[in-house]
Amino acid sequence: MNDQEAAPAGPLAGVLVVDLTRVMAGPYATMILSDLGARVIKVEDPDGGDDSRGFGPIHGHTSTYFASVNRGKQSIALNLKSEADRKILFDLLAGADVLVENFRPGVMDRLGMSTRLLSERFPRLIYASLSGFGQTGPYRDRAAYDIVVQAMGGMMSVTGFPDGPPARIGTSIGDIGAGVFTALGICGALFSRQNSGKGCTIDVGMLDCQIALHENAITRHVATGEIPGPMGSKHPLIAPFQAFQTADAWIVIAAGNDTLFARFVHAIGRPDLSENPLFNGRLMRQRHHQALEIEVEITLAHKTAADWLSLLQEAGIPCGPINTVADLINDPQLRARNMLCSTRNKAGELFTVVGNPMKFSAFADTAERQPVPELDQDRADILAELYSREADQNDQPPASMPRT
Amino acid sequence: MNDQEAAPAGPLAGVLVVDLTRVMAGPYATMILSDLGARVIKVEDPDGGDDSRGFGPIHGHTSTYFASVNRGKQSIALNLKSEADRKILFDLLAGADVLVENFRPGVMDRLGMSTRLLSERFPRLIYASLSGFGQTGPYRDRAAYDIVVQAMGGMMSVTGFPDGPPARIGTSIGDIGAGVFTALGICGALFSRQNSGKGCTIDVGMLDCQIALHENAITRHVATGEIPGPMGSKHPLIAPFQAFQTADAWIVIAAGNDTLFARFVHAIGRPDLSENPLFNGRLMRQRHHQALEIEVEITLAHKTAADWLSLLQEAGIPCGPINTVADLINDPQLRARNMLCSTRNKAGELFTVVGNPMKFSAFADTAERQPVPELDQDRADILAELYSREADQNDQPPASMPRT
Repeated sequence: MNDQEAAPAGPLAGVLVVDLTRVMAGPYATMILSDLGARVIKVEDPDGGDDSRGFGPIHGHTSTYFASVNRGKQSIALNLKSEADRKILFDLLAGADVLVENFRPGVMDRLGMSTRLLSERFPRLIYASLSGFGQTGPYRDRAAYDIVVQAMGGMMSVTGFPDGPPARIGTSIGDIGAGVFTALGICGALFSRQNSGKGCTIDVGMLDCQIALHENAITRHVATGEIPGPMGSKHPLIAPFQAFQTADAWIVIAAGNDTLFARFVHAIGRPDLSENPLFNGRLMRQRHHQALEIEVEITLAHKTAADWLSLLQEAGIPCGPINTVADLINDPQLRARNMLCSTRNKAGELFTVVGNPMKFSAFADTAERQPVPELDQDRADILAELYSREADQNDQPPASMPRT
Repeated sequence: MNDQEAAPAGPLAGVLVVDLTRVMAGPYATMILSDLGARVIKVEDPDGGDDSRGFGPIHGHTSTYFASVNRGKQSIALNLKSEADRKILFDLLAGADVLVENFRPGVMDRLGMSTRLLSERFPRLIYASLSGFGQTGPYRDRAAYDIVVQAMGGMMSVTGFPDGPPARIGTSIGDIGAGVFTALGICGALFSRQNSGKGCTIDVGMLDCQIALHENAITRHVATGEIPGPMGSKHPLIAPFQAFQTADAWIVIAAGNDTLFARFVHAIGRPDLSENPLFNGRLMRQRHHQALEIEVEITLAHKTAADWLSLLQEAGIPCGPINTVADLINDPQLRARNMLCSTRNKAGELFTVVGNPMKFSAFADTAERQPVPELDQDRADILAELYSREADQNDQPPASMPRT
């Protein structure tokens, strides 16, 4: 498999992942494993494959949604309800390090792949299940999508504006958050297995991950009784730490401590603000943040965003523009950091995809990512690898198969 | 160290992490490592320690902010500008697996701990640097806080409401996102080191991590030219997939495909909607989502949130309440999943903290977490471990120190 041979090495080079996941959270997790150097074999339903292959917008011949989280994987179509195809899956698992699935709890049992059976038959296998609410608890059988766990997890209650309608976090943090924690748990289990020789199961629930993404809100609430609510762009504890309007556009400014505040008001020509007892110290600025906002915006109205940002950067004040997705594409930092990568589908059509935010001194970080797989495109290669060593018709699954 | 002996084993049991991080992103990363079973020694400035020890609200004797991300760590106060204290740090590093810091780029060099020096002196050490923009690129020297990378990373441009003021994601996803990816990179590097015997450096930038958390927005924009904007609670590609008002409160409903939509309109007694050509198929529902919202809310206005949620759950429609942080505390699923844990400070005062969303079959997941350290509380134990074996005054750093 030439693309595989050309794949950039990463810390997980040599790890083989069998990936039964669909749509977003699971595929995001296995994309991370692929970016870390693992070989990921995506097992798809022969009847159209991953549902997200059909999600618009379609660019050329490929769903942009599908491309965004499935580049760099191989694809084989298997009908998990067919005895023959399940045999192929089990032969794959015999040589695999990791199995990941994001079916509803119970589906794997019905497919004849219970946790017990898998752990008995493949004791070294790391088997990660990603689901809406996890494999246990009263909600385990409920269906979940991103917005359901964003809402139930409290994320939406602290995002948006007081007395306004609820706001969703604009990226699918319910899916993506669970995907990152699943990849993290798998890396931890791979490390542990090198000592113990034993695999294990990992149970990740999307709702749990939303809770884990709250920093101090829960601790703060229990200790004080205060119920955090949406605050627009404002930080609950720090001021000024928010978006401000300038003559032409909004910018964000984060003068998070006394030193930065003094430097900030000096930089914008308002030293009077640091002498004002209302704004003396972090707690006072927080208590009087509305008065502070008004004073600051009166001044910021006199220059453009670009002028203020260069002036504030000059002064070492944390600040920045509110970039659109379009702005990200040409951002010199993101370019320099190789965070905007390119990949192709089989037709050679080009896609810009997100890069890997973990930069390792020991491994390459290439800008051209491995292609987006067509449904079942690697079937012949994978079956050849699996069964070439079985020409004698012996029934044993192969001990292992190539990882790279 | 009795708390350490009592610590629940995890996949990183036996790993020793030396933690120079402050405030949020770095401490969140090392808290994850601690939850995964690593021993984390937090090195703090003797002059007050981690700044976040001073962040309100204070519960009893301890900052809730500090407690939320530092429980389960040990603390030693070292002045990194002092020769003698730096010697202690280097002796710690001689037996450590991981070093994590989130200083501005260049600070470690000025402290006499350049990447080159550390990698030469500690070739097995995994050295992770977490910073606002990473160690390279034109913005590397700029200061960043959470809201700065939320804004520059495009997160705020897709969150909130069209034509409304910018909204920040209510949790510090700029910090937390970078913390999770840092922990993930460290776990990958630990796995890799077991084969290579070599450590490496890991460079994580907060801005890069915001980009990585976008799912298909960038791919979609480049392929279509469309610039995603804020959509309140609406999903950019799917309808109905948003918050709806009922007689008494908002709820979220995600009828993400044709089957669920048919079941949904039947469940709410509006089968006419599935016969309406305006709503025939995912693309049509997305195109006419405003008309669909109006029709649905006309119906939902006749019952309470609780009534609709039980009815929709009965019908298997993904849905949920918009929980506040207060609602999370007693949620039976989060209780059953052990996502709300308790910890204490030295005075014995109780804190509720977030649990670990990665549930491993092979490891315990205890509800009582290790305590929140007082500044420098473990100094005597740590120094005794380091130097007990040096009674003969030999100058060699110890080959290693206990990991648990």
